Amino acid sequence: MRLNAIHAALAAATLTLALGAQVRAAEQEPIQPLEPAKITDPAKVELGKQLFFDPRLSRSGWISCNSCHNLSMGGSDNFKSSVGDHWAQGGIRAPTVLNSSLNIAQFWDGRAKDLAAQAGGPIANPIEMGSTHEAAEKTLDTIPGYRTQFKKVYGVDKIGIDQITDAIAAFEATLITPNSRFDKWLKGDKAAITADELAGYQLFKDTGCVACHNGPAVGGGSYQKFGLVHEYKTANPATGRAGVTGNDGDRMMFKVPTLRNIELTPPYFHDGSAKTLSQAVATMAWVQLGKTLTPDQNAKIVAFLKTLTGDQPSFPLPQLPPSSDQTPRPDPFAPVAKK
Amino acid sequence: MRLNAIHAALAAATLTLALGAQVRAAEQEPIQPLEPAKITDPAKVELGKQLFFDPRLSRSGWISCNSCHNLSMGGSDNFKSSVGDHWAQGGIRAPTVLNSSLNIAQFWDGRAKDLAAQAGGPIANPIEMGSTHEAAEKTLDTIPGYRTQFKKVYGVDKIGIDQITDAIAAFEATLITPNSRFDKWLKGDKAAITADELAGYQLFKDTGCVACHNGPAVGGGSYQKFGLVHEYKTANPATGRAGVTGNDGDRMMFKVPTLRNIELTPPYFHDGSAKTLSQAVATMAWVQLGKTLTPDQNAKIVAFLKTLTGDQPSFPLPQLPPSSDQTPRPDPFAPVAKK
Repeated sequence: MRLNAIHAALAAATLTLALGAQVRAAEQEPIQPLEPAKITDPAKVELGKQLFFDPRLSRSGWISCNSCHNLSMGGSDNFKSSVGDHWAQGGIRAPTVLNSSLNIAQFWDGRAKDLAAQAGGPIANPIEMGSTHEAAEKTLDTIPGYRTQFKKVYGVDKIGIDQITDAIAAFEATLITPNSRFDKWLKGDKAAITADELAGYQLFKDTGCVACHNGPAVGGGSYQKFGLVHEYKTANPATGRAGVTGNDGDRMMFKVPTLRNIELTPPYFHDGSAKTLSQAVATMAWVQLGKTLTPDQNAKIVAFLKTLTGDQPSFPLPQLPPSSDQTPRPDPFAPVAKK
Repeated sequence: MRLNAIHAALAAATLTLALGAQVRAAEQEPIQPLEPAKITDPAKVELGKQLFFDPRLSRSGWISCNSCHNLSMGGSDNFKSSVGDHWAQGGIRAPTVLNSSLNIAQFWDGRAKDLAAQAGGPIANPIEMGSTHEAAEKTLDTIPGYRTQFKKVYGVDKIGIDQITDAIAAFEATLITPNSRFDKWLKGDKAAITADELAGYQLFKDTGCVACHNGPAVGGGSYQKFGLVHEYKTANPATGRAGVTGNDGDRMMFKVPTLRNIELTPPYFHDGSAKTLSQAVATMAWVQLGKTLTPDQNAKIVAFLKTLTGDQPSFPLPQLPPSSDQTPRPDPFAPVAKK
């Protein structure tokens, strides 16, 4: 073997070792990169996208899924509590729909086992979209452009709520946000984040945040008591898992939210009480971990969190199939019928 | 000249004559094809697009231009009257924003001379977006992604309402809907519309509709009295141009609406009283022209009107620049301050 060739072989072996070490390092990190959603049924996803943007699923004809899970601003409405039918006030901070397929369950209290089970909730909730499943089905059945698509995707002549929520869930499952700077770092691009951001990540791990905020979604994988070390004081009456399990020991147990794209969705917590990321980090360190961060530590963790913003949903603005003469003409100002 | 060459020359001459005749025919029609908007300042249009979709321009943080001029459904909300701040009821049917740059003026009563003058109205109208120009400026000034764009497009360090409305207007001016089947017919594709649709167009001309609904927008070019031949009875208190000119003779004078994409935007008229195109056509024939159409004539005109649906706006869902820690956190449920 000539000397040049030996050098080349050595260099290649070194590179292989180095890359291997990087891959192993990434595997050992408690956070994993997001991978883009694989779309297996594009017609279903397209149908679900239209439904997600269609206000005709609401009583008023004015509120769509996108009204509170606004895909132009991080998949949420960024209020303490959401606006519903007749400007009703919701009870809790609307969680982002981005990466929500990675959650162990849906809603803050996990009362819906998956996205399809979730999607039916707001449609029929009097303080959200304020309609009924029957009314939603009837309305869509009068829209030829929907009938054609439901026939194609589900083989049905009559549109049912189970197909409506299944299609919405299929669309929502595509709302993954890969390619954040942190993911690039995880995949070996060491220049993708700054020294301060990296120091913030180290602090995020050392302080203990990562115990709950881990996995590809940096959260969403477990329920935890809010106020684990010190009591979390809030005027918001939500009780968390206790409302689902009936078990008083589950009071204030909430699903750990994803921290992906967290920069885009102030205010924070289920009660929206933290106006800034800095406030949220300080509160979490204290009530969950019993720690007080220095301003410098806080700033570094915030800097790290901002590296978690990934590619936002990118698709042409959906065009909704037109109503027919048979489609109800909604009146947002009609009094709400008593049940 | 050889015989083949003579034949070819004759054929070419015949084709030229035929095309010329078609072009002349199209020129003689009272309706002209829409041409796509020419975008001369893409950065300004992109900025305006973001603003059009940004609910942070409203007091509540929940209502954007797109809330009532929904570009997924024909550029309107399709209600008799629109929903505003705190679910306030608007006074009039929201006109479509599609092709609105072709109108002689904006609003049903033409009180805004152009799109920029229009855009400032809803932002500060208490029953629409419910904010103030000052609040809108202040909010945008706290958003780095907007500051960069306003600096680039307008060279300003402080964002002003004049630039905000100018950018929104620049975006809205791109919302032209070319390539309808009727436009293809106008341009010479005689198979683009059916015999019934063509008969409907002939009836549309013969009945007199075309006297006001003409030009590229099939309307939008003049003010006309609603109830010209027979009184138009409505509970809606809008007085039309009289409210602008102070001239009692202008009562019930409204801007003739465009009929482009009319299939997409029921209900019809400034009071939204006509639930279907068929009802709208029958009423217009009677009150404006003193004519009663047969069901067959009515159906043919409706069929023609449905050929006016063109290419809808097509662009990626806008992503809005994130709020900073300094950006106000809107509370939709805060009581409205008295002025």
